[in-house]
Amino acid sequence: MVKAVLFDVFGTLVDWRTSLIRFFETFGRERGIAADWPQFVDEWRESYAPTMDLVRRGDLPWINLDGLHRYAFDALVQQFGLPDLSEEEREHCTLAWHRLDPWPDVRDGLLSLRSHVLTGTLSNGNIRLLADLAHYGDLRFDVILSAEIFRHYKPDSQTYLGAAELLQLAPGEVMLAAAHNGDLRAAANCGLRTAFIARPEWGPNQHSDLRAEGGIDLTAQDVIDLAERLEERLRTGEG
Amino acid sequence: MVKAVLFDVFGTLVDWRTSLIRFFETFGRERGIAADWPQFVDEWRESYAPTMDLVRRGDLPWINLDGLHRYAFDALVQQFGLPDLSEEEREHCTLAWHRLDPWPDVRDGLLSLRSHVLTGTLSNGNIRLLADLAHYGDLRFDVILSAEIFRHYKPDSQTYLGAAELLQLAPGEVMLAAAHNGDLRAAANCGLRTAFIARPEWGPNQHSDLRAEGGIDLTAQDVIDLAERLEERLRTGEG
Repeated sequence: MVKAVLFDVFGTLVDWRTSLIRFFETFGRERGIAADWPQFVDEWRESYAPTMDLVRRGDLPWINLDGLHRYAFDALVQQFGLPDLSEEEREHCTLAWHRLDPWPDVRDGLLSLRSHVLTGTLSNGNIRLLADLAHYGDLRFDVILSAEIFRHYKPDSQTYLGAAELLQLAPGEVMLAAAHNGDLRAAANCGLRTAFIARPEWGPNQHSDLRAEGGIDLTAQDVIDLAERLEERLRTGEG
Repeated sequence: MVKAVLFDVFGTLVDWRTSLIRFFETFGRERGIAADWPQFVDEWRESYAPTMDLVRRGDLPWINLDGLHRYAFDALVQQFGLPDLSEEEREHCTLAWHRLDPWPDVRDGLLSLRSHVLTGTLSNGNIRLLADLAHYGDLRFDVILSAEIFRHYKPDSQTYLGAAELLQLAPGEVMLAAAHNGDLRAAANCGLRTAFIARPEWGPNQHSDLRAEGGIDLTAQDVIDLAERLEERLRTGEG
């Protein structure tokens, strides 16, 4: 039976793309900087996996997600030929990741889910980043679990198994909910249960993760739907 | 200015004594075991510091608070001459620490505080224990920080400084709220701000921590009062 549901955050719970594009449109207007902001934001997000791999391979020391975002931002500023930004402006832009709107179902869905199971994050975001997102979006979790605690990024097994261990649960009692098949596949390989929620996180450029791939336990429309399906399963003993 | 308020939990937010005595009165009645349960509970809590010191000195390997509670419980069962309890019963008793009633002001006080600052725990309780207490007591925190993350118990400086570091705040931007002068003194030595809340956690046997000792930034009646005083200070720029 599932006793805890942990959520991937970026893409799954918060709409980073719309929020960041809006942030940069304001930022650019206020500073008279023109750029293809949707393209800038998409490339920033795309840089995340390769930058994280630098840490995973040991080419960079451990840095948290704020650090990865900043590292990639500095490269993108050059690549896009933006005017030289001050240290303060660069930090301001990096911290835009701390204020991302949740998808509209998330707040109520989490509250509903909380009647049945422990709820939490399991995200590559650092602790402060996740706390700020929860605070900003009024999202209620019982616990904030982060790659920063384990000093390993998903999809490293240390994150999934470390989360189950901290929750004092068997891997099969923990469900990961995510909009990303790769994350769920890695969790399933560690024995966790999995729930897929399709999200249009890349807007018109979404070409992958349109639907659940093989081996996923449950597919839900959104977090409210996930809470209902899980309640049904727990009630009928299939949870 | 204070940007986050972290709470000690046992005694400060939850009334472990009343809750555990009630638990054991039921437990004893159901199993036909008579004992001086208030005495048993008080000794269980008193055993916490010396058991933790075994870990601190390296005489025991790292074990989390559930582990410390269980270790001390087994000794107390012998000492009180209780009948031999099964493994399942011992676990059941140890997990009573996961269901402790909050003091009546805590739930609303945390919600109020959350309008002004990040809120969290900074407790020697393990992550799952704190998540269960938050869930059981309907207590809302932005983040659960625990000795278990740092593998150091309060009052080791690694806990206070580690919490500030994870929150990406200077120590002086973090306030610890606690009912224990020793905890606050150690936090202040690390540069944290401090708030004392007197709690009758030992019931009629309370002889220490009746009031704030020297060097404490703020004394509050309860968490609601703390939220009001902090709001006032933040508003007037004295926060």
